[in-house]
Amino acid sequence: MTALLAPRRDIDFMLFELLQLERLCERERFAEHSRETFGAALDTAYAIAADKFAPHLRAADETEPHLIDAKVVLRPEVAPALRAFADAGFMSAAHDETLGGMQLPFSVAMACWSVFKCANIATEVYASLTIGAADLLTACGTSEQVERYVRPMLAGRWFGTMVLTEPQAGSSLADVSTSATPTADGRYSIRGQKIFITAGDHEITENIVHLVLARLPDAPPGVKGLSLFIVPKRVIDADGTVGGDNDVALAGLIHKMGFRGTTSAMLSFGEQGRCFGELAGQPNQGLACMFHMMNEARIGVGFGATMLGYAGYVHALAYARERVQGRGAAGKPAAIIEHADVRRMLLAQKAAVEGALALSLWGASLADEQRTAVDETARREAGALLDLVTPVIKSWPSKFCLEANSEAIQVHGGYGYTRDHPVEQFYRDNRLNPIHEGTHGIQSLDLLGRKVLGDGGRALALLGREVAAATEAARALDNAELVAHADALDRAWQALGETTITLAQALKSKPALALANSAVYMDAFGHTLVAWLWLRQAQAATLALRTEPHDPFYLGKRAAARYFFGWVLPGTQPMHELLRRLDGACAEMRDAWF
Amino acid sequence: MTALLAPRRDIDFMLFELLQLERLCERERFAEHSRETFGAALDTAYAIAADKFAPHLRAADETEPHLIDAKVVLRPEVAPALRAFADAGFMSAAHDETLGGMQLPFSVAMACWSVFKCANIATEVYASLTIGAADLLTACGTSEQVERYVRPMLAGRWFGTMVLTEPQAGSSLADVSTSATPTADGRYSIRGQKIFITAGDHEITENIVHLVLARLPDAPPGVKGLSLFIVPKRVIDADGTVGGDNDVALAGLIHKMGFRGTTSAMLSFGEQGRCFGELAGQPNQGLACMFHMMNEARIGVGFGATMLGYAGYVHALAYARERVQGRGAAGKPAAIIEHADVRRMLLAQKAAVEGALALSLWGASLADEQRTAVDETARREAGALLDLVTPVIKSWPSKFCLEANSEAIQVHGGYGYTRDHPVEQFYRDNRLNPIHEGTHGIQSLDLLGRKVLGDGGRALALLGREVAAATEAARALDNAELVAHADALDRAWQALGETTITLAQALKSKPALALANSAVYMDAFGHTLVAWLWLRQAQAATLALRTEPHDPFYLGKRAAARYFFGWVLPGTQPMHELLRRLDGACAEMRDAWF
Repeated sequence: MTALLAPRRDIDFMLFELLQLERLCERERFAEHSRETFGAALDTAYAIAADKFAPHLRAADETEPHLIDAKVVLRPEVAPALRAFADAGFMSAAHDETLGGMQLPFSVAMACWSVFKCANIATEVYASLTIGAADLLTACGTSEQVERYVRPMLAGRWFGTMVLTEPQAGSSLADVSTSATPTADGRYSIRGQKIFITAGDHEITENIVHLVLARLPDAPPGVKGLSLFIVPKRVIDADGTVGGDNDVALAGLIHKMGFRGTTSAMLSFGEQGRCFGELAGQPNQGLACMFHMMNEARIGVGFGATMLGYAGYVHALAYARERVQGRGAAGKPAAIIEHADVRRMLLAQKAAVEGALALSLWGASLADEQRTAVDETARREAGALLDLVTPVIKSWPSKFCLEANSEAIQVHGGYGYTRDHPVEQFYRDNRLNPIHEGTHGIQSLDLLGRKVLGDGGRALALLGREVAAATEAARALDNAELVAHADALDRAWQALGETTITLAQALKSKPALALANSAVYMDAFGHTLVAWLWLRQAQAATLALRTEPHDPFYLGKRAAARYFFGWVLPGTQPMHELLRRLDGACAEMRDAWF
Repeated sequence: MTALLAPRRDIDFMLFELLQLERLCERERFAEHSRETFGAALDTAYAIAADKFAPHLRAADETEPHLIDAKVVLRPEVAPALRAFADAGFMSAAHDETLGGMQLPFSVAMACWSVFKCANIATEVYASLTIGAADLLTACGTSEQVERYVRPMLAGRWFGTMVLTEPQAGSSLADVSTSATPTADGRYSIRGQKIFITAGDHEITENIVHLVLARLPDAPPGVKGLSLFIVPKRVIDADGTVGGDNDVALAGLIHKMGFRGTTSAMLSFGEQGRCFGELAGQPNQGLACMFHMMNEARIGVGFGATMLGYAGYVHALAYARERVQGRGAAGKPAAIIEHADVRRMLLAQKAAVEGALALSLWGASLADEQRTAVDETARREAGALLDLVTPVIKSWPSKFCLEANSEAIQVHGGYGYTRDHPVEQFYRDNRLNPIHEGTHGIQSLDLLGRKVLGDGGRALALLGREVAAATEAARALDNAELVAHADALDRAWQALGETTITLAQALKSKPALALANSAVYMDAFGHTLVAWLWLRQAQAATLALRTEPHDPFYLGKRAAARYFFGWVLPGTQPMHELLRRLDGACAEMRDAWF
């Protein structure tokens, strides 16, 4: 079986031409690496994704995790796929060599993980949660905790989860009520109900390391009273041997529209009073620790949404090229790609998924800058930028690559609506992404209320510097189309600035109204940010076309940029008008009027 | 179980306040009817929909039609539901009394059928296909055929289907190759493969009447060589008794993302050379006959998409009112409807589904005008208007009520993504509507290429007269908000006219480019048309508020109109710019560049 995955050529373009990440190898942390080692890691990722992940895409969707003898049973292909993933080193791709890791840049590791997301995200997600949990403990745990928990996780022997949501609290973490009571021997007795725990139960690994938000007895109310606990599914002896159960009961499996291959569990901690965990990080600092994982998970969601969109696109493209139906311009039977409206749907997908991939990889590269830039100011600024755009990286692909998935179905016509083609599954899977790890609405409030207006626009100004550099570089190439794009981007950026100032002023006198339409602000922000990345892609393509004037790959980049600037970015204009007039249609709507 | 259905109050508002359909009772055909009889039919529809259709919504989704002993088996609730539907007279709701029908106006009958669509569209569709097939035969068949086939169908003893698509031909009906060979006894031997036949096989009724497009031996190529045949699943004796099989073999069941309760079949006609049918209508006029059913089916798709959107909206609204999470403005636990962003999602749904319902019912009322208006000019003009807007009635709800379904999931958060709430099913079901009965792309080419530009803009001018009447009537109420809406609609209508003229001129010199972006044209057209219907709804509400100034229903209508004019209609501006510059991004894209 040949898997249809996001083309390697585009990944290479993003990493090496657009973002020029080869330069990271000059830094001490990545000194052992080169474009060749990056490429070798990607080669391996493609091979394992095609051999072990893609083939059971549909089977795992059709056979959801289910209970046999009170154990959660998955498709038999899932465990070997994740075993191959771990054995090839992908669990620790970005981790230190001292922990057995490849010490790849986060951006390059993300590119590798994305290949698995593209092939079968429902299986891949067991790995990415484990990686995120390991990262959290590496950042917030003691060195003893790292040895005890992180090493087995990076080896793929134990998997990890993040355990936040409770049935009554939903998105409101302030209302989390799971309790953690200190015991005489320095442990904590955990008690509470959690829901929507992805990868929350299975028998793939001998243990599962749950990272649980809970409340100490004397904790203050709200999110400032949350602490983080390491709660293994099964008891671990002092020497690391896994023993009997730790009173973490599976209270139910959740059946979803998509992501059906992934366990989603309701878990009951400490029903019998013998569930014990240990504190990670400081008391009442749990949310700050968890945000380490959540921010990474949000970027991961952006990549996941992007790759589901990309998977749909490559399938739709292959179908449009091979499906002969009706007649083309010459009156002869023609593949449907000959129809302008089919090309419209393909271009819309290309512009969305390649724009989203550029956005996500640029975001991941900011994490590398934040960690390894030589200059301290550069590190700080990269961190500020990443903070600013994390909600957009999470949300823009979740919304617009889902729309791309819908177009992938449409290209297939009636066949795309059947379960004989995978595009309907990508669409179902991707519908999760605007919800989990903070809904679209919560991300937009984070972006506008906290990230943009909360810091007086400083991070936005940093981004403005990047935008100005890109328009200047684009104009320097003296290509009329690029210059027009640069002009359009300048105007869009200026409009975004003016809208932001209007909202900042309104925030003082009418805070509810200033924030009421934040979802629209996030769309306008995202379109402008992705336009910037399309300008940069078009610029890189224009440069390359000077030496390879007929290369269809680069001509395609320019065509997709033209589509984005002509079809998507102009949609921000009515958004700005709506935002600047502080439209009150939603804020002033009353319950009784619905 | 109390079913959550589109509220009766809104149906009544549409029928009697917006469209004032009580006036139809003055006409001879409807002289036996009154607002009371219309209301009684709706009462019955609501009762049966709630009792017999809604309760097995999820069960029919979970248990798809499947084969037992080579018979297609459905959920046991389906047959009794359809039996109740037929027994209450809904199969023949719009048919002549001489055929045992209620002789209701088509618009009122559609309102009744919509209630069933809202409750369980996968079950309702068996009925609507039967009604459509009966209508076709009533229009195109001989009186003998009407007696022989239509009477049992209207009684619910036999069901009907429409059999067009073939695996190799897809949307290209010109390539239909099923053959019909005359036999010595005046019948036709049918042979060919058909696919995506909705309700194509089941054991609910003792027979299924397939209406099949096929080709006579001497037929010209293309769509002008298609004839229509009545091909029963089981042989029918001269006296109407149903006998053995007619060599219509089930070649396979199609498994879809949604509409899982409905059989979708591959059928093989005449594998053993003993499948016989009779000609309906004239030889080589089959497509014209079939268009009678297809146009009705397209309007039915618009209603179906609308009602799926409406079902999602009423569920999301109920959830948003009861789900307490986080804190409201006063710092106390609050239902999520208190959040402006949740109200945004609800308003977006309300504006879409109530706009779509007004559009669909207005379209259905045009069919009544076409048939029963006293004045011949009025009949002709209503027919021209209905022809013009049929692609929009089919497509606008299919696109924008599907978006509403996505927002209904989003309002539910993680719960909406689970199969414990019906909103994910509505979303899956509704994804079919932009595909079947002519894809979105095909509808947009029909609208722009044939309906608007093909007739020199005459039908568009008729619609312009309606728009002008509405803006004038709205201004007469002297309400500032209404006047602003009327101004906005005038501008939007003028923009649509200018864009149309630009495209008409381009059609002569650059036909491919003029038609390349027809999907965008259809969106702009649809938004403008629905804005007109929102102005009319707001006007009717404003009138009513003069006597009932605090009625929340009417205040809600005004609020949703405000949303549509503030949030949706302005999105047409960049569409017009794109269309007028004859943007070539899609037309000029090359296969190799993807």
